[in-house]
Amino acid sequence: MLTYTKKYTVPYYETDANGNMKLPSLFNIALQLSGEQSHNLGISDDWLKETYNYAWVVVEYDVTIQRLPRFSEIITMATFAKSYNKFFCYRDFVFYAENGDTLLTINSTFVLIDTTSRKVAHVEDDIVTPYQSEKISKIVRGHKYTDLSDTTLEKSYHVRFNDIDQNGHVNNSKYFDWMTDVLGYDFLSSHVPSRIHLKYSKEVLYGTTVTSRVDLVGLQSFHDITSEGKHAQAEMTWRKK
Amino acid sequence: MLTYTKKYTVPYYETDANGNMKLPSLFNIALQLSGEQSHNLGISDDWLKETYNYAWVVVEYDVTIQRLPRFSEIITMATFAKSYNKFFCYRDFVFYAENGDTLLTINSTFVLIDTTSRKVAHVEDDIVTPYQSEKISKIVRGHKYTDLSDTTLEKSYHVRFNDIDQNGHVNNSKYFDWMTDVLGYDFLSSHVPSRIHLKYSKEVLYGTTVTSRVDLVGLQSFHDITSEGKHAQAEMTWRKK
Repeated sequence: MLTYTKKYTVPYYETDANGNMKLPSLFNIALQLSGEQSHNLGISDDWLKETYNYAWVVVEYDVTIQRLPRFSEIITMATFAKSYNKFFCYRDFVFYAENGDTLLTINSTFVLIDTTSRKVAHVEDDIVTPYQSEKISKIVRGHKYTDLSDTTLEKSYHVRFNDIDQNGHVNNSKYFDWMTDVLGYDFLSSHVPSRIHLKYSKEVLYGTTVTSRVDLVGLQSFHDITSEGKHAQAEMTWRKK
Repeated sequence: MLTYTKKYTVPYYETDANGNMKLPSLFNIALQLSGEQSHNLGISDDWLKETYNYAWVVVEYDVTIQRLPRFSEIITMATFAKSYNKFFCYRDFVFYAENGDTLLTINSTFVLIDTTSRKVAHVEDDIVTPYQSEKISKIVRGHKYTDLSDTTLEKSYHVRFNDIDQNGHVNNSKYFDWMTDVLGYDFLSSHVPSRIHLKYSKEVLYGTTVTSRVDLVGLQSFHDITSEGKHAQAEMTWRKK
């Protein structure tokens, strides 16, 4: 298993009113890191598109946060493609503080989609062997999400031009913005997430207005993003600052 | 005049559906650069706050764009504090392509505000002499903005938690998002800005819903951001892609 690491200084604009790294930024820099690993191994996103007409798509995140990176902190980010089976690739990201403490861990599940048919493709060995990823037969069981029984808060969000990435849909990091923003300033400035499960089910396109709903039960929040149908679900655990 | 330079590789998440760097990202990385220069000269934003209770605030930008940085391009960014008078500091940013071509130039005007009274403060020499900035007596005449005579398009934007920075107000780069987004996907995916004048007049706080209005006349667009009163005005010139 090849681990790719990089140091990163957290810039001002990726931190929120509390000086903590914004959630969307966490996932932006994580995916940038795995993109760099692929590029360095000669199996970049461009190569994947040209060779197979495939693209990587994240379907699920499981995030454990000890502490969010802070403004101007120098963190070390590591990523490795842990294992894969016929349909899923499991990749971890670990962010470390300067003293070596683990700040957070992201377990991610990726699929390959055919960019024309938008259908999930089989994982070919030569796409993943350069990562020295372990081939496994079992499908790792994802988190079981609870449907929202009640809604504490909900808010509508219009998709903006700058939410759309080169895949032509809303970038997956944006969902964290919609899901947390609905909780409001008072909650967000006095709480930080310690655990996040998030599952994407359907891409969001330009022109859509999504509804972000949350059921807040103590320090647990249950989320969904809907428009016509469900686009994503999440469960988060929070702690008081 | 001390010039501070840095190389920067444009990450995926800072580019739009066309692969061009997003306007808010341009200003984010520019201000990060000047912040780094200040830090390296021992006159960081923290020093300024602790010593004088002051903060830097951008009041105006004048941007000339030959070409926007592209995804994965390695650019060189340069900045220098050109000149200052009693109230204003003039700082330039120049972004270069790998072959040395100028991509864009940002002329910016800053003021110092007292962070308690929120009032503009006199520019003390020892705050700016480390930059080897030239003291001038004249006030550089800003752009003359035309009030919107007509409105082609307008749209409301709620301020989100992640729009707020550590100064407790909407980060100034966000205005570019609001101002351009109103033009819509078709326009934004077929046009790029070549000149931007933008002037901030009043900060936007959390809880506000702003209206972004635009009067589009051929390849010129006249913008304002209002809620109770005017927060910002801009004029942009566009060219077809």
